[in-house]
Amino acid sequence: MSRKLTGTVHLVGAGPGDPDLLTLKAHRLIRRASVILHDDLVPSAILALAGPQAEVVNVGKRCGRKGITQAEINARMIEAARRGLEVVRLKSGDPGIFGRLAEEIDALEAAGVPFEIVPGISAGIAAAASLGVSLTDRRKSSRVVIVSGHSAPKNTPEEKPDWKSLAREDATLVVYMPGNDFTSLREELLAAGLDPATPAVIVSHATAPRQQHRSTTLAALDTLPHMDSPAVLLIGRSLHHAHRRSRSDAVAVAFDEAELILSSL
Amino acid sequence: MSRKLTGTVHLVGAGPGDPDLLTLKAHRLIRRASVILHDDLVPSAILALAGPQAEVVNVGKRCGRKGITQAEINARMIEAARRGLEVVRLKSGDPGIFGRLAEEIDALEAAGVPFEIVPGISAGIAAAASLGVSLTDRRKSSRVVIVSGHSAPKNTPEEKPDWKSLAREDATLVVYMPGNDFTSLREELLAAGLDPATPAVIVSHATAPRQQHRSTTLAALDTLPHMDSPAVLLIGRSLHHAHRRSRSDAVAVAFDEAELILSSL
Repeated sequence: MSRKLTGTVHLVGAGPGDPDLLTLKAHRLIRRASVILHDDLVPSAILALAGPQAEVVNVGKRCGRKGITQAEINARMIEAARRGLEVVRLKSGDPGIFGRLAEEIDALEAAGVPFEIVPGISAGIAAAASLGVSLTDRRKSSRVVIVSGHSAPKNTPEEKPDWKSLAREDATLVVYMPGNDFTSLREELLAAGLDPATPAVIVSHATAPRQQHRSTTLAALDTLPHMDSPAVLLIGRSLHHAHRRSRSDAVAVAFDEAELILSSL
Repeated sequence: MSRKLTGTVHLVGAGPGDPDLLTLKAHRLIRRASVILHDDLVPSAILALAGPQAEVVNVGKRCGRKGITQAEINARMIEAARRGLEVVRLKSGDPGIFGRLAEEIDALEAAGVPFEIVPGISAGIAAAASLGVSLTDRRKSSRVVIVSGHSAPKNTPEEKPDWKSLAREDATLVVYMPGNDFTSLREELLAAGLDPATPAVIVSHATAPRQQHRSTTLAALDTLPHMDSPAVLLIGRSLHHAHRRSRSDAVAVAFDEAELILSSL
């Protein structure tokens, strides 16, 4: 029987936090993997799905005494695959949205290591769902713009998004890593003509048990309290009814009760 | 034993087509539901997961002799929930992205019917993953803009996106329902200063067995062939390496072989 020389690297989206929002494929790959290299934000409830054979390594850049560089992460993926192992590179949310996926793909291609990307539910999309709102609404919001509040460790002025270009009445703005200071964002969006009454919601730990959110308007954006990371900030007319608490837990219970009733009939 | 008077409507994302990309939660809800009201684009492989107790109804607007109106869909959801049934309203992709979710939420709230939204993998995100590319790349693409080529049945000029505002070197443009005529899109993006060499890829039936894609550049956008619906058009510098075929099938086979080898050792 032939033996594969090089394993495959599966670049897998872990979704927003709730293990129930993993895809079937991600769930299976995590359970079967020989090596799991994961980011800081992947919750323990998801890592606990790994099989007893798995080596589970936190390669999160905020973890440990010294930072792990992207080059080191790339090297670990390649080294594990060359040992013939099936590697899951597990990233929170969707790997292709602010996940440095492009750099990892480049490294894998350069090394000749086979890979595949398994998409995941991105935090901004999950946050809207948990608030009971739609990101688009053909009556008032026809586009979704996904940006990062800061894309690099040092948030120099040049690295900040061009907020003015984002100020459109018909867009829902989804800001990843929004930070804590919304003064300039508020001023630029108002100066660009966006309605001060435009709804804004910040969601922390979307879909996790400790999810929290605060709703406000663009006019009062600078009064939002500090929210734990990971957080996502949503701004736009389609969020008008984002006044609901996350209701998934309550609903899941109701659903189980209904099944209980049905099966006891 | 008390009996619930009103069931819950679960507004569920079915993902892009591959049943393996359903979330665990969507998979469970589909198997347990009493009533499934689904769109045209949900593939039979996913509908086949429904239990024997389920009433499965296509409420797709393109189906049947006469069109089903949004009001009729809303009425069916509400009526089923009032019969005490657990209802799954199954939408392709993510329900909150161009799915008329907002109108269904409004109707459910007005009727006092409890609901929850279960996010799904959206077609554009799945398309990028299947092409082996990242939608963002901190070296060249810092935002993702999701728009619809036409948001209404009649594609009048007013309903077309303001393409010029989308022409940014640092954005990846994801166009749902792109249609077949890219002449004006090409001209407007070029006139707004976008590089003619910007990569563009159209993907049809992303993640389904019959997935197809064609890669080109903005300069040659108008030469793209007709592609089956559902299709999604991606434009941006981050797509530079979207030259790969969908490799998920090949990789899945390799993975199963590896497990076979391991378990036979």
